[in-house]
Amino acid sequence: MKAEIITIGDEILIGQVVDTNSAWMSEQLNLCGVEVFQITSVHDNHDHILTALKEASQRAQLVLITGGLGPTKDDITKKVLCEYFNTELVFHPEILEHVKTLLTQRNVAINQLNRDQALLPASCTILHNPVGTAPGMWFEKDGVIYVSMPGVPFEMEAIMSGEVLPRLKKMNLAESIVHKTILTQGIPESMLAETIAKWEENLPEYIKLAYLPSPTGVRLRLSAYGTDEATLRAETEKQVTELQKIIPEYIYGYDNQSMSEVIGQLLIEMQQTMAVAESCTGGYISHLVTEVPGCSAYYNGSVTAYSNEVKVNVLGVSQSSLDQFGAVSRQVAEEMASGVQKLMKADFAVATTGIAGPDGGTQEKPVGTVWIAVAGHNRVVSQKFTFRHNRERNIIRSAQAALNMLRQLILTEKSIAV
Amino acid sequence: MKAEIITIGDEILIGQVVDTNSAWMSEQLNLCGVEVFQITSVHDNHDHILTALKEASQRAQLVLITGGLGPTKDDITKKVLCEYFNTELVFHPEILEHVKTLLTQRNVAINQLNRDQALLPASCTILHNPVGTAPGMWFEKDGVIYVSMPGVPFEMEAIMSGEVLPRLKKMNLAESIVHKTILTQGIPESMLAETIAKWEENLPEYIKLAYLPSPTGVRLRLSAYGTDEATLRAETEKQVTELQKIIPEYIYGYDNQSMSEVIGQLLIEMQQTMAVAESCTGGYISHLVTEVPGCSAYYNGSVTAYSNEVKVNVLGVSQSSLDQFGAVSRQVAEEMASGVQKLMKADFAVATTGIAGPDGGTQEKPVGTVWIAVAGHNRVVSQKFTFRHNRERNIIRSAQAALNMLRQLILTEKSIAV
Repeated sequence: MKAEIITIGDEILIGQVVDTNSAWMSEQLNLCGVEVFQITSVHDNHDHILTALKEASQRAQLVLITGGLGPTKDDITKKVLCEYFNTELVFHPEILEHVKTLLTQRNVAINQLNRDQALLPASCTILHNPVGTAPGMWFEKDGVIYVSMPGVPFEMEAIMSGEVLPRLKKMNLAESIVHKTILTQGIPESMLAETIAKWEENLPEYIKLAYLPSPTGVRLRLSAYGTDEATLRAETEKQVTELQKIIPEYIYGYDNQSMSEVIGQLLIEMQQTMAVAESCTGGYISHLVTEVPGCSAYYNGSVTAYSNEVKVNVLGVSQSSLDQFGAVSRQVAEEMASGVQKLMKADFAVATTGIAGPDGGTQEKPVGTVWIAVAGHNRVVSQKFTFRHNRERNIIRSAQAALNMLRQLILTEKSIAV
Repeated sequence: MKAEIITIGDEILIGQVVDTNSAWMSEQLNLCGVEVFQITSVHDNHDHILTALKEASQRAQLVLITGGLGPTKDDITKKVLCEYFNTELVFHPEILEHVKTLLTQRNVAINQLNRDQALLPASCTILHNPVGTAPGMWFEKDGVIYVSMPGVPFEMEAIMSGEVLPRLKKMNLAESIVHKTILTQGIPESMLAETIAKWEENLPEYIKLAYLPSPTGVRLRLSAYGTDEATLRAETEKQVTELQKIIPEYIYGYDNQSMSEVIGQLLIEMQQTMAVAESCTGGYISHLVTEVPGCSAYYNGSVTAYSNEVKVNVLGVSQSSLDQFGAVSRQVAEEMASGVQKLMKADFAVATTGIAGPDGGTQEKPVGTVWIAVAGHNRVVSQKFTFRHNRERNIIRSAQAALNMLRQLILTEKSIAV
C-alpha cells in the first residue's frame, strides 16, 4: 500500500517549525508495510489544501493529513474536508464533553472556539484524541483512505498509535519491509563505496542499499522488500554478517545506537568506568556521554582543560611537555588521558587536544590538527587527525573519532580479558 | 517571488532523517522577501524527481532542490537534470581540483566516484561548495530559476549563504525588509504575550511580530516592510528600545547571538575569566561556551562531576553537605561553583546539579529538579528550577538558565565596578 503525507500549516513554510511529524509517521507506516511515496507541505489555504488532497489521492491509497485543526484554525481544514467529501458539519455532544473535561483539568474556561471543535464532518469516523481537544477523522472515498489529525506532535502520535496504526495492521496490508542500518565511522563515503562495491553488487535484488553520510560517520541502510518478514530478516542479517567481515574495523553499531550508547553497554557489561579530558572538543564528548540515560553507572566525569594552567594544575600535564612539544601534541594528549584517568579513578579515559579554529593555526599545525589519546589498563594509544576549517564540525568529528578510539581500546582489553 | 522546495531522498520518506533543511531554507528565503509556496519530498527516483520539477515550475518562479548529489547518488539527480534542461554532463577540471584539494586535506585517496563529481550539466552555473565535493547548480528555463544542492545540511547552508542568497538579494525581489530578533530567556510564551500585549498592539501596521519559542527561550522577530530601509531600521530600533523598557530582565541579546557569545563579550570587556562545574548538564554548558571562537581569552575550563566522588575529590564539595542535603541541593551547587572557581582560578563560575531523568527522581525531588549556582567576587547566588520529564530538554533548559544567571551576575558586578 502506498501512502502520502500532507502537512498543513504556514508555520512550516516560513521555517518557524521543523516538520518532525512526517519522519515519525513515515517510520511507523514503514513498520506496518506501508510505503510513503511523497510528503507535501501546504499553506493554511482552501485551494491549496484541496489541490493537495486531489493530487495525493491519484498517487496513493492512504492520505494522512496533519495540521490545521487547532481551535483558531478550525474553519479552513474542516470546511475543505466537508467540500471534498461532499458532507456537512454535525454536532457531537460526546466530543464537547471530552473538550470540557480536558479544559477543566487545565483550568481553562471554555469558549466558542472550543465548542466548535465538537462540530465534525457527518461522513467521517471519529478517532479519539486522548490528549487534546481536536479529534482525528477517518474518511474513505473511491478506494482511498484519508485520515486528518492535529499537527501538535504528541496529539498526532496518540491518535496514530491508538487508532490509525491498529486499523492499518488489521488490514494486513502489504508485503513486508525490513530495515537494518549499519553505522560506520572513520571511512569516507567514497572509499566505503569502493571497499564494499562487490558486496553491494551481490545484494539480492529485493534488498536496497542507501548511503547516509553525516559528520558522525556514514550510515548504510539496507531495506528488504518481500512477502515473508522472517525470510527478509534472515537474509538481511546474512548480508550484515558478510559486511561485518569486509569492514569490521569501521562498524561501531546498528540502527539508532549512538557511539556513546555502544560504549556504555560495553562498560556496563565489563563493570568498568570512564573519564574524559577535553581541550579542543570543549565538553562536547562529555555531553555525548551524558546524553545516554543511566550513564552514571560508568561515567565518573570530565575535565575541560581549556587553558594550559588547568592542563598542568588539574590534570597533571607536565610543564616541560607543554614547553617542548606544545599543547597540541602526542605527549600532552597522552598525559591528559592518563591524568584524568588517575584524577577520577577511572578504568578508561579519552583526551583531545587540537586547534578547532577558526584561528590559532600555524603552518606546522594548521586549524583542524587534533591529537587524541585513550588510556586503559597499562596502555595508552594516541593518534593524530587532520580535520578542516569549520570549528563546529571539527568539534563533532574530533569527538566522534575520540569515542571510536575509546571503543576500540575497550574492545581490545575485553578480548584480552576473556 | 514564489519559491518551492523539493527534497530528494528515500531516507526522508522512510522517516530515518528529519528534513531540517526545508525549515532553514524557508526562513532564509523569507528574509530575502521570497515566499515558499510548497515543500515536496520525493524518492531517489527518475520519474518522481522529473514530475516534481515539472509541477513545481508551474507554481513557482524559484525551485530549490536538495539531496541526491553525494558521490554514490550522483547518477539519478544529475541525469534527471540533464534530461529536464536538455543538456549533457561536461567535465570541469577546476571542480576536480577542488575535490582533490578537499580529499587531500582529509587524507583520502581520490577514486572514480569522486572524479565523477567534476561532471556537471553544461547549461548550469556552478555554485561553489566550500565545504564539500558536490557543487551546487543554478539553472534558468522559461523564466523559472532552479537551484540544485547537496542534502548535507552544512553543505547546503554554505552554498545558500555564499551563492544563492546573495544572488537573490541582488535581484531586488521585494520592497525593503528589515528584521530584528529580540532574544528572551526565563519567561514562557503565553506570559510574554500577555506582558507585551499593549506594546504589540501599538506596533505600526507595517511591522509584524512573530513569536519563536524554543528550549533556549522565546525569540521575538520584528519584520518591517516598506520602501525606505533607513526609515524601517530607525522605526524598528525605536520599538526595540520601547520593549527593552518593558522586559529588561528577560532580554539577553539580539539576532543570531548566543547566550555564551553575550557572556564572552562581557568578559572580554572586563578582562575577566570564567569556569564551569557540571553535574546534570554533563558538559553541555562547557560545549556552549567553547562553541564561540576566541573563547580561550576568557575560558579556563570545566569539571563534569558526574560521580559524588569527583564532586568531593576534584571540586572540594564537602562530604557532609552531600550526606545532609543530597547531591541535588543548594549547598552542593554553591560548593561546586566556588570549588571550580578556586580550582581553575577564575573570576566567575557557574555550577549545575539536578536530575535530568528519565530515572532518579523522588517524590521530594522529581525528575527535572535542578539547582544552579553562580559565583563572582565575594558573591554566590543560587536558584532552584523545576523543569520536566525529557532528559534532552532538561539538559538544554538547565544550561541556558545557568548561563543566563551567570550573565546577570556578571552584569551586576560590572555595574558595581563602574
